[in-house]
Amino acid sequence: MRIDILTLFPDMFHVPLSESIIGRARKKGLLDIRIFNIRDFAENKHKRVDDYPYGGGAGMILMPQPVFAALEAVDAKSSRIIYPSPKGKIFNQQLAIDLSKEERLVFICGHYEGIDQRIIDHWVTDEISIGDYVLTGGELPVMVIIDAVSRMIPGVLGQEESYTDESFYSGLLEYPHYTRPSEYNGLNVPAVLLSGNHQNIEEWRKIQSLSITYRMRKDLFEKYIRRQDLSKEERKLIEKFFKEYLKEK
Amino acid sequence: MRIDILTLFPDMFHVPLSESIIGRARKKGLLDIRIFNIRDFAENKHKRVDDYPYGGGAGMILMPQPVFAALEAVDAKSSRIIYPSPKGKIFNQQLAIDLSKEERLVFICGHYEGIDQRIIDHWVTDEISIGDYVLTGGELPVMVIIDAVSRMIPGVLGQEESYTDESFYSGLLEYPHYTRPSEYNGLNVPAVLLSGNHQNIEEWRKIQSLSITYRMRKDLFEKYIRRQDLSKEERKLIEKFFKEYLKEK
Repeated sequence: MRIDILTLFPDMFHVPLSESIIGRARKKGLLDIRIFNIRDFAENKHKRVDDYPYGGGAGMILMPQPVFAALEAVDAKSSRIIYPSPKGKIFNQQLAIDLSKEERLVFICGHYEGIDQRIIDHWVTDEISIGDYVLTGGELPVMVIIDAVSRMIPGVLGQEESYTDESFYSGLLEYPHYTRPSEYNGLNVPAVLLSGNHQNIEEWRKIQSLSITYRMRKDLFEKYIRRQDLSKEERKLIEKFFKEYLKEK
Repeated sequence: MRIDILTLFPDMFHVPLSESIIGRARKKGLLDIRIFNIRDFAENKHKRVDDYPYGGGAGMILMPQPVFAALEAVDAKSSRIIYPSPKGKIFNQQLAIDLSKEERLVFICGHYEGIDQRIIDHWVTDEISIGDYVLTGGELPVMVIIDAVSRMIPGVLGQEESYTDESFYSGLLEYPHYTRPSEYNGLNVPAVLLSGNHQNIEEWRKIQSLSITYRMRKDLFEKYIRRQDLSKEERKLIEKFFKEYLKEK
Protein backbone atom coordinates (compact mmCIF):
# COMPACT_ATOMS: atom_id res chain seq x y z
CA MET A 1 0.00 0.00 0.00
CA ARG A 2 1.20 3.50 -0.77
CA ILE A 3 0.49 6.16 1.86
CA ASP A 4 1.06 9.90 1.32
CA ILE A 5 0.95 12.17 4.36
CA LEU A 6 0.57 15.94 3.99
CA THR A 7 1.58 17.72 7.19
CA LEU A 8 3.15 20.85 8.66
CA PHE A 9 5.14 18.70 11.12
CA PRO A 10 6.89 16.02 9.03
CA ASP A 11 9.46 15.32 11.78
CA MET A 12 6.74 13.97 14.05
CA PHE A 13 6.30 10.93 11.82
CA HIS A 14 9.83 9.70 11.31
CA VAL A 15 10.37 7.61 14.45
CA PRO A 16 6.76 6.47 15.09
CA LEU A 17 6.50 5.19 11.51
CA SER A 18 9.91 3.47 11.63
CA GLU A 19 9.55 1.42 14.82
CA SER A 20 8.07 -1.97 15.40
CA ILE A 21 5.54 -3.51 13.03
CA ILE A 22 5.16 -0.48 10.73
CA GLY A 23 8.93 -0.14 10.30
CA ARG A 24 9.20 -3.82 9.44
CA ALA A 25 6.35 -3.59 6.93
CA ARG A 26 8.11 -0.68 5.22
CA LYS A 27 11.36 -2.63 5.01
CA LYS A 28 9.49 -5.62 3.57
CA GLY A 29 8.02 -3.34 0.90
CA LEU A 30 4.44 -3.86 2.08
CA LEU A 31 4.10 -0.19 2.95
CA ASP A 32 5.43 2.75 0.94
CA ILE A 33 4.98 5.80 3.17
CA ARG A 34 5.82 9.26 1.80
CA ILE A 35 5.72 12.38 3.95
CA PHE A 36 5.27 15.88 2.49
CA ASN A 37 5.54 19.27 4.15
CA ILE A 38 2.51 21.35 3.15
CA ARG A 39 4.65 24.48 3.59
CA ASP A 40 6.81 23.44 0.63
CA PHE A 41 3.77 23.95 -1.62
CA ALA A 42 2.96 27.51 -0.51
CA GLU A 43 3.31 29.84 -3.49
CA ASN A 44 3.60 33.09 -1.54
CA LYS A 45 6.92 34.74 -0.73
CA HIS A 46 7.01 33.90 2.99
CA LYS A 47 5.77 30.30 2.61
CA ARG A 48 2.79 31.25 4.69
CA VAL A 49 0.19 28.49 5.03
CA ASP A 50 -2.46 29.98 7.34
CA ASP A 51 -4.61 33.08 7.55
CA TYR A 52 -7.37 34.58 9.69
CA PRO A 53 -10.87 33.08 9.53
CA TYR A 54 -13.52 34.89 7.47
CA GLY A 55 -16.23 36.06 9.80
CA GLY A 56 -13.85 36.46 12.75
CA GLY A 57 -13.01 34.18 15.65
CA ALA A 58 -9.97 32.72 17.38
CA GLY A 59 -7.25 30.71 15.68
CA MET A 60 -5.75 30.50 12.22
CA ILE A 61 -7.07 28.52 9.26
CA LEU A 62 -4.99 26.44 6.85
CA MET A 63 -5.31 28.13 3.41
CA PRO A 64 -6.61 26.30 0.34
CA GLN A 65 -3.68 26.99 -2.01
CA PRO A 66 -0.84 25.00 -0.37
CA VAL A 67 -3.05 21.97 0.29
CA PHE A 68 -4.59 21.99 -3.20
CA ALA A 69 -1.06 22.20 -4.68
CA ALA A 70 0.22 19.35 -2.47
CA LEU A 71 -2.75 17.12 -3.37
CA GLU A 72 -2.20 17.80 -7.07
CA ALA A 73 1.53 17.12 -6.73
CA VAL A 74 0.95 13.65 -5.25
CA ASP A 75 -1.80 12.99 -7.82
CA ALA A 76 -4.28 12.28 -5.05
CA LYS A 77 -7.37 12.28 -7.26
CA SER A 78 -7.53 8.51 -7.75
CA SER A 79 -7.01 7.77 -4.04
CA ARG A 80 -9.13 7.88 -0.93
CA ILE A 81 -8.24 11.13 0.82
CA ILE A 82 -8.58 11.07 4.58
CA TYR A 83 -8.89 14.10 6.83
CA PRO A 84 -9.01 13.36 10.58
CA SER A 85 -11.35 15.69 12.44
CA PRO A 86 -13.77 15.49 15.37
CA LYS A 87 -16.58 16.01 12.81
CA GLY A 88 -15.81 12.84 10.93
CA LYS A 89 -17.35 9.40 11.02
CA ILE A 90 -16.12 7.35 13.98
CA PHE A 91 -13.06 5.23 13.30
CA ASN A 92 -13.40 1.58 14.30
CA GLN A 93 -11.90 -1.80 13.49
CA GLN A 94 -14.30 -2.38 10.58
CA LEU A 95 -13.22 0.89 8.94
CA ALA A 96 -9.58 -0.11 9.52
CA ILE A 97 -10.23 -3.38 7.67
CA ASP A 98 -12.00 -1.56 4.81
CA LEU A 99 -9.14 0.92 4.40
CA SER A 100 -6.55 -1.89 4.51
CA LYS A 101 -7.91 -3.12 1.16
CA GLU A 102 -7.06 0.12 -0.68
CA GLU A 103 -3.96 0.37 -2.87
CA ARG A 104 -3.35 3.96 -1.85
CA LEU A 105 -4.34 6.34 0.93
CA VAL A 106 -3.66 10.08 1.21
CA PHE A 107 -3.82 11.81 4.60
CA ILE A 108 -4.18 15.54 5.29
CA CYS A 109 -3.15 16.67 8.79
CA GLY A 110 -5.01 19.72 9.98
CA HIS A 111 -3.52 22.20 12.41
CA TYR A 112 -4.30 25.62 13.76
CA GLU A 113 -8.01 26.15 14.36
CA GLY A 114 -8.95 24.14 11.28
CA ILE A 115 -8.61 23.95 7.53
CA ASP A 116 -10.48 25.83 4.82
CA GLN A 117 -13.73 23.97 4.19
CA ARG A 118 -13.16 24.10 0.42
CA ILE A 119 -10.31 21.59 0.85
CA ILE A 120 -12.71 19.17 2.54
CA ASP A 121 -15.58 19.74 0.08
CA HIS A 122 -13.41 19.49 -3.03
CA TRP A 123 -10.98 16.71 -2.11
CA VAL A 124 -11.66 14.73 1.04
CA THR A 125 -13.40 11.36 0.63
CA ASP A 126 -13.27 10.31 4.30
CA GLU A 127 -13.48 12.71 7.23
CA ILE A 128 -12.67 10.43 10.16
CA SER A 129 -12.77 10.96 13.94
CA ILE A 130 -10.65 8.68 16.12
CA GLY A 131 -12.72 9.62 19.18
CA ASP A 132 -14.68 12.32 21.02
CA TYR A 133 -11.78 14.46 22.17
CA VAL A 134 -9.92 17.47 20.81
CA LEU A 135 -6.28 17.22 19.73
CA THR A 136 -3.74 19.84 18.69
CA GLY A 137 -3.39 18.55 15.15
CA GLY A 138 -4.07 15.73 12.76
CA GLU A 139 -0.65 14.10 13.11
CA LEU A 140 -1.46 11.74 16.02
CA PRO A 141 -4.82 10.64 14.54
CA VAL A 142 -3.09 9.94 11.21
CA MET A 143 -0.50 7.76 12.98
CA VAL A 144 -3.29 5.95 14.85
CA ILE A 145 -5.23 5.25 11.63
CA ILE A 146 -2.09 4.13 9.77
CA ASP A 147 -1.14 1.80 12.64
CA ALA A 148 -4.59 0.20 12.84
CA VAL A 149 -4.90 -0.10 9.04
CA SER A 150 -1.37 -1.39 8.40
CA ARG A 151 -1.63 -4.33 10.76
CA MET A 152 -4.67 -5.59 8.81
CA ILE A 153 -2.74 -5.73 5.51
CA PRO A 154 -1.91 -9.38 4.77
CA GLY A 155 1.74 -10.14 5.56
CA VAL A 156 2.29 -7.20 7.91
CA LEU A 157 1.73 -9.16 11.11
CA GLY A 158 3.93 -12.21 11.56
CA GLN A 159 2.25 -15.54 12.23
CA GLU A 160 3.20 -15.23 15.90
CA GLU A 161 1.24 -11.97 16.08
CA SER A 162 -2.06 -13.33 14.82
CA TYR A 163 -4.87 -10.88 15.41
CA THR A 164 -7.63 -13.46 15.68
CA ASP A 165 -7.62 -13.40 19.50
CA GLU A 166 -7.78 -9.64 19.71
CA SER A 167 -10.49 -7.39 21.04
CA PHE A 168 -13.00 -6.47 18.33
CA TYR A 169 -12.05 -9.42 16.19
CA SER A 170 -14.56 -11.74 17.82
CA GLY A 171 -16.68 -8.84 19.00
CA LEU A 172 -15.68 -9.37 22.64
CA LEU A 173 -12.95 -7.73 24.70
CA GLU A 174 -9.88 -9.80 25.41
CA TYR A 175 -9.42 -12.13 28.38
CA PRO A 176 -6.58 -11.34 30.84
CA HIS A 177 -3.02 -12.46 30.07
CA TYR A 178 -0.43 -13.88 32.44
CA THR A 179 3.19 -14.89 32.04
CA ARG A 180 6.03 -16.16 34.25
CA PRO A 181 6.53 -16.29 37.18
CA SER A 182 3.39 -18.03 38.44
CA GLU A 183 3.78 -16.16 41.74
CA TYR A 184 5.19 -12.63 41.88
CA ASN A 185 5.20 -10.53 45.05
CA GLY A 186 2.47 -12.74 46.49
CA LEU A 187 0.29 -12.33 43.39
CA ASN A 188 -0.70 -15.60 41.71
CA VAL A 189 -1.64 -16.62 38.19
CA PRO A 190 -5.16 -18.20 38.12
CA ALA A 191 -4.73 -21.92 38.76
CA VAL A 192 -6.67 -22.99 35.65
CA LEU A 193 -3.95 -21.49 33.40
CA LEU A 194 -1.33 -23.72 35.05
CA SER A 195 -3.52 -26.85 34.83
CA GLY A 196 -2.56 -27.87 31.31
CA ASN A 197 -6.23 -28.68 30.65
CA HIS A 198 -6.82 -26.90 27.34
CA GLN A 199 -10.58 -27.26 27.35
CA ASN A 200 -10.85 -25.67 30.79
CA ILE A 201 -8.45 -22.91 29.76
CA GLU A 202 -10.48 -22.11 26.65
CA GLU A 203 -13.69 -22.00 28.64
CA TRP A 204 -12.17 -19.82 31.36
CA ARG A 205 -10.87 -17.38 28.75
CA LYS A 206 -14.21 -17.15 26.97
CA ILE A 207 -16.07 -16.59 30.26
CA GLN A 208 -13.51 -13.89 31.18
CA SER A 209 -14.06 -12.20 27.81
CA LEU A 210 -17.82 -12.28 28.28
CA SER A 211 -17.48 -10.95 31.82
CA ILE A 212 -15.12 -8.07 30.94
CA THR A 213 -17.26 -7.10 27.97
CA TYR A 214 -20.42 -7.24 30.08
CA ARG A 215 -18.87 -5.03 32.78
CA MET A 216 -17.04 -2.55 30.55
CA ARG A 217 -19.02 -2.40 27.31
CA LYS A 218 -22.68 -3.41 27.49
CA ASP A 219 -23.05 -2.11 23.90
CA LEU A 220 -20.56 -4.66 22.53
CA PHE A 221 -21.96 -7.40 24.74
CA GLU A 222 -25.52 -6.90 23.48
CA LYS A 223 -24.27 -6.91 19.90
CA TYR A 224 -22.31 -10.11 20.47
CA ILE A 225 -25.09 -12.17 22.05
CA ARG A 226 -27.44 -11.15 19.20
CA ARG A 227 -25.09 -12.42 16.51
CA GLN A 228 -26.66 -14.98 14.19
CA ASP A 229 -23.43 -16.85 13.49
CA LEU A 230 -22.66 -18.03 17.03
CA SER A 231 -21.89 -21.72 17.37
CA LYS A 232 -23.75 -24.07 19.71
CA GLU A 233 -20.72 -24.02 22.05
CA GLU A 234 -20.71 -20.23 22.12
CA ARG A 235 -24.40 -20.11 22.99
CA LYS A 236 -23.85 -22.63 25.76
CA LEU A 237 -21.07 -20.50 27.23
CA ILE A 238 -23.24 -17.39 27.16
CA GLU A 239 -25.91 -19.31 29.09
CA LYS A 240 -23.31 -20.53 31.57
CA PHE A 241 -21.97 -17.00 31.95
CA PHE A 242 -25.42 -15.66 32.79
CA LYS A 243 -26.00 -18.41 35.34
CA GLU A 244 -22.60 -18.10 36.99
CA TYR A 245 -22.54 -14.34 36.86
CA LEU A 246 -25.98 -14.06 38.44
CA LYS A 247 -25.08 -16.70 41.03
CA GLU A 248 -22.04 -14.66 42.11
CA LYS A 249 -24.17 -11.61 42.75
CA MET B 1 1.92 18.62 35.71
CA ARG B 2 4.47 15.85 35.90
CA ILE B 3 4.04 12.97 33.46
CA ASP B 4 6.05 9.74 33.59
CA ILE B 5 5.90 7.41 30.60
CA LEU B 6 7.02 3.78 30.87
CA THR B 7 7.62 2.33 27.42
CA LEU B 8 9.72 -0.10 25.39
CA PHE B 9 10.01 2.48 22.60
CA PRO B 10 11.18 5.73 24.22
CA ASP B 11 12.41 7.14 20.90
CA MET B 12 8.86 7.28 19.56
CA PHE B 13 8.03 10.08 21.99
CA HIS B 14 10.85 12.53 21.52
CA VAL B 15 9.67 14.49 18.49
CA PRO B 16 5.88 14.22 18.96
CA LEU B 17 6.20 15.52 22.55
CA SER B 18 8.56 18.35 21.53
CA GLU B 19 6.59 19.96 18.70
CA SER B 20 3.89 22.54 18.76
CA ILE B 21 1.78 23.19 21.85
CA ILE B 22 3.21 20.36 24.00
CA GLY B 23 6.80 21.42 23.29
CA ARG B 24 5.96 25.01 24.24
CA ALA B 25 4.24 23.89 27.47
CA ARG B 26 7.34 21.90 28.43
CA LYS B 27 9.59 24.92 27.79
CA LYS B 28 7.27 27.10 29.87
CA GLY B 29 7.56 24.59 32.74
CA LEU B 30 3.85 23.71 32.67
CA LEU B 31 4.63 20.11 31.71
CA ASP B 32 7.45 17.98 33.09
CA ILE B 33 7.52 14.86 30.92
CA ARG B 34 9.90 12.02 31.80
CA ILE B 35 10.32 8.96 29.61
CA PHE B 36 11.61 5.63 30.95
CA ASN B 37 12.58 2.47 29.10
CA ILE B 38 10.93 -0.50 30.80
CA ARG B 39 13.84 -2.65 29.61
CA ASP B 40 16.24 -0.75 31.88
CA PHE B 41 14.38 -2.18 34.88
CA ALA B 42 14.61 -5.84 33.85
CA GLU B 43 16.62 -7.72 36.46
CA ASN B 44 17.50 -10.75 34.35
CA LYS B 45 20.78 -11.13 32.50
CA HIS B 46 19.50 -10.52 28.97
CA LYS B 47 17.23 -7.61 29.89
CA ARG B 48 14.32 -9.69 28.73
CA VAL B 49 10.93 -8.07 29.32
CA ASP B 50 8.44 -10.54 27.81
CA ASP B 51 7.60 -14.23 28.04
CA TYR B 52 5.09 -16.75 26.70
CA PRO B 53 1.49 -16.62 27.96
CA TYR B 54 0.37 -19.13 30.58
CA GLY B 55 -2.30 -21.32 29.07
CA GLY B 56 -0.89 -21.00 25.55
CA GLY B 57 -1.78 -18.74 22.66
CA ALA B 58 -0.09 -16.41 20.19
CA GLY B 59 2.06 -13.44 21.16
CA MET B 60 4.33 -12.52 24.04
CA ILE B 61 3.28 -10.97 27.35
CA LEU B 62 5.08 -8.15 29.17
CA MET B 63 6.37 -9.64 32.47
CA PRO B 64 5.46 -8.24 35.88
CA GLN B 65 8.99 -7.69 37.25
CA PRO B 66 10.32 -4.90 34.96
CA VAL B 67 7.06 -2.93 35.12
CA PHE B 68 6.71 -3.31 38.91
CA ALA B 69 10.33 -2.12 39.28
CA ALA B 70 9.81 0.86 36.97
CA LEU B 71 6.63 1.91 38.80
CA GLU B 72 8.44 1.69 42.14
CA ALA B 73 11.41 3.65 40.77
CA VAL B 74 9.21 6.58 39.71
CA ASP B 75 7.27 6.35 43.00
CA ALA B 76 4.02 5.95 41.12
CA LYS B 77 1.91 4.95 44.11
CA SER B 78 0.56 8.43 44.84
CA SER B 79 -0.33 9.10 41.18
CA ARG B 80 -3.07 8.04 38.81
CA ILE B 81 -1.60 5.26 36.70
CA ILE B 82 -3.01 4.97 33.22
CA TYR B 83 -2.85 1.92 30.99
CA PRO B 84 -4.32 2.35 27.48
CA SER B 85 -6.08 -0.78 26.24
CA PRO B 86 -9.14 -1.63 24.16
CA LYS B 87 -10.72 -2.98 27.37
CA GLY B 88 -10.64 0.38 29.13
CA LYS B 89 -13.29 3.00 29.67
CA ILE B 90 -13.77 5.18 26.61
CA PHE B 91 -11.62 8.31 26.49
CA ASN B 92 -13.53 11.52 25.83
CA GLN B 93 -13.19 15.25 26.37
CA GLN B 94 -14.68 15.09 29.88
CA LEU B 95 -12.08 12.53 30.95
CA ALA B 96 -9.36 14.74 29.39
CA ILE B 97 -10.60 17.65 31.53
CA ASP B 98 -10.68 15.48 34.68
CA LEU B 99 -7.12 14.23 34.10
CA SER B 100 -5.88 17.77 33.40
CA LYS B 101 -6.56 18.61 37.06
CA GLU B 102 -4.10 16.01 38.41
CA GLU B 103 -0.63 17.01 39.58
CA ARG B 104 0.90 13.84 38.23
CA LEU B 105 0.10 11.11 35.73
CA VAL B 106 1.96 7.87 35.06
CA PHE B 107 1.46 6.00 31.77
CA ILE B 108 2.28 2.37 31.02
CA CYS B 109 2.60 1.50 27.32
CA GLY B 110 1.71 -2.09 26.55
CA HIS B 111 3.22 -3.98 23.66
CA TYR B 112 3.41 -7.52 22.38
CA GLU B 113 0.13 -9.39 22.88
CA GLY B 114 -0.54 -7.68 26.20
CA ILE B 115 0.77 -7.18 29.70
CA ASP B 116 0.56 -9.46 32.73
CA GLN B 117 -2.83 -8.87 34.37
CA ARG B 118 -1.18 -8.57 37.82
CA ILE B 119 0.32 -5.24 36.71
CA ILE B 120 -3.16 -3.96 35.93
CA ASP B 121 -4.79 -5.37 39.06
CA HIS B 122 -2.06 -4.17 41.41
CA TRP B 123 -1.19 -0.75 39.99
CA VAL B 124 -3.41 0.66 37.28
CA THR B 125 -6.05 3.18 38.36
CA ASP B 126 -7.37 3.99 34.87
CA GLU B 127 -7.54 1.52 32.01
CA ILE B 128 -8.50 3.76 29.09
CA SER B 129 -9.48 3.03 25.48
CA ILE B 130 -9.06 5.80 22.90
CA GLY B 131 -11.43 4.02 20.51
CA ASP B 132 -12.73 0.70 19.18
CA TYR B 133 -9.72 -0.32 17.12
CA VAL B 134 -6.59 -2.37 17.73
CA LEU B 135 -3.14 -0.77 17.73
CA THR B 136 0.37 -2.22 17.84
CA GLY B 137 1.23 -0.69 21.19
CA GLY B 138 0.29 1.82 23.83
CA GLU B 139 2.64 4.55 22.61
CA LEU B 140 0.23 6.28 20.20
CA PRO B 141 -2.72 6.16 22.64
CA VAL B 142 -0.48 7.64 25.35
CA MET B 143 0.51 10.50 23.02
CA VAL B 144 -3.15 11.07 22.15
CA ILE B 145 -4.19 11.20 25.82
CA ILE B 146 -1.28 13.49 26.76
CA ASP B 147 -2.10 15.84 23.87
CA ALA B 148 -5.80 16.08 24.76
CA VAL B 149 -5.08 16.46 28.49
CA SER B 150 -2.23 18.97 28.16
CA ARG B 151 -4.20 21.47 26.16
CA MET B 152 -6.79 21.65 28.95
CA ILE B 153 -4.18 22.67 31.56
CA PRO B 154 -4.56 26.41 32.23
CA GLY B 155 -1.84 28.40 30.45
CA VAL B 156 -0.95 25.73 27.89
CA LEU B 157 -3.09 27.16 25.10
CA GLY B 158 -2.35 30.76 24.18
CA GLN B 159 -5.23 33.23 24.24
CA GLU B 160 -5.35 33.10 20.44
CA GLU B 161 -5.96 29.34 20.66
CA SER B 162 -9.01 29.46 22.91
CA TYR B 163 -10.81 26.14 23.00
CA THR B 164 -14.26 27.54 23.70
CA ASP B 165 -15.32 27.28 20.03
CA GLU B 166 -14.18 23.71 19.69
CA SER B 167 -16.17 20.57 19.06
CA PHE B 168 -17.26 18.94 22.33
CA TYR B 169 -16.89 22.17 24.29
CA SER B 170 -20.44 23.31 23.56
CA GLY B 171 -21.58 19.77 22.86
CA LEU B 172 -21.94 20.44 19.13
CA LEU B 173 -19.53 19.78 16.29
CA GLU B 174 -17.75 22.79 14.84
CA TYR B 175 -19.04 24.96 12.01
CA PRO B 176 -16.95 25.11 8.78
CA HIS B 177 -13.99 27.48 8.56
CA TYR B 178 -12.87 29.60 5.62
CA THR B 179 -9.92 31.89 5.02
CA ARG B 180 -8.49 33.98 2.17
CA PRO B 181 -8.91 34.13 -0.77
CA SER B 182 -12.70 34.53 -0.98
CA GLU B 183 -12.63 32.74 -4.35
CA TYR B 184 -10.17 29.96 -5.09
CA ASN B 185 -10.30 27.83 -8.24
CA GLY B 186 -13.93 28.82 -8.72
CA LEU B 187 -14.84 27.83 -5.16
CA ASN B 188 -16.40 30.60 -3.08
CA VAL B 189 -16.60 31.41 0.60
CA PRO B 190 -20.26 31.61 1.77
CA ALA B 191 -21.43 35.22 1.24
CA VAL B 192 -22.61 35.68 4.83
CA LEU B 193 -19.02 35.39 6.12
CA LEU B 194 -17.97 38.31 3.92
CA SER B 195 -20.98 40.44 4.93
CA GLY B 196 -19.49 41.95 8.08
CA ASN B 197 -22.84 41.41 9.83
CA HIS B 198 -21.76 39.73 13.04
CA GLN B 199 -25.21 38.70 14.15
CA ASN B 200 -25.88 36.92 10.85
CA ILE B 201 -22.46 35.28 11.00
CA GLU B 202 -23.07 33.98 14.52
CA GLU B 203 -26.46 32.60 13.52
CA TRP B 204 -25.09 30.97 10.37
CA ARG B 205 -22.33 29.30 12.35
CA LYS B 206 -24.70 27.98 15.00
CA ILE B 207 -27.08 26.61 12.36
CA GLN B 208 -24.12 24.97 10.59
CA SER B 209 -23.02 23.38 13.88
CA LEU B 210 -26.53 22.07 14.50
CA SER B 211 -26.75 20.77 10.95
CA ILE B 212 -23.37 18.99 10.96
CA THR B 213 -24.06 17.47 14.37
CA TYR B 214 -27.53 16.35 13.23
CA ARG B 215 -26.13 14.71 10.10
CA MET B 216 -22.98 13.17 11.57
CA ARG B 217 -23.74 12.49 15.22
CA LYS B 218 -27.41 12.09 16.17
CA ASP B 219 -26.24 10.94 19.64
CA LEU B 220 -24.54 14.28 20.38
CA PHE B 221 -27.42 16.23 18.80
CA GLU B 222 -30.03 14.56 21.01
CA LYS B 223 -27.92 15.19 24.07
CA TYR B 224 -27.49 18.86 23.15
CA ILE B 225 -31.14 19.70 22.56
CA ARG B 226 -32.06 18.05 25.87
CA ARG B 227 -29.65 20.23 27.86
CA GLN B 228 -31.31 22.18 30.66
CA ASP B 229 -28.90 25.13 30.52
CA LEU B 230 -29.65 26.29 26.96
CA SER B 231 -30.41 30.00 26.62
CA LYS B 232 -33.57 31.38 25.04
CA GLU B 233 -31.52 32.29 21.93
CA GLU B 234 -30.17 28.77 21.67
CA ARG B 235 -33.67 27.28 21.90
CA LYS B 236 -34.88 29.68 19.20
CA LEU B 237 -32.05 28.62 16.90
CA ILE B 238 -32.83 24.94 17.42
CA GLU B 239 -36.46 25.67 16.42
CA LYS B 240 -35.29 27.60 13.38
CA PHE B 241 -32.95 24.79 12.45
CA PHE B 242 -35.77 22.24 12.54
CA LYS B 243 -38.03 24.45 10.42
CA GLU B 244 -35.33 25.30 7.85
CA TYR B 245 -33.90 21.82 7.77
CA LEU B 246 -37.30 20.27 7.19
CA LYS B 247 -38.14 22.92 4.60
CA GLU B 248 -35.03 22.05 2.61
CA LYS B 249 -36.02 18.40 2.44
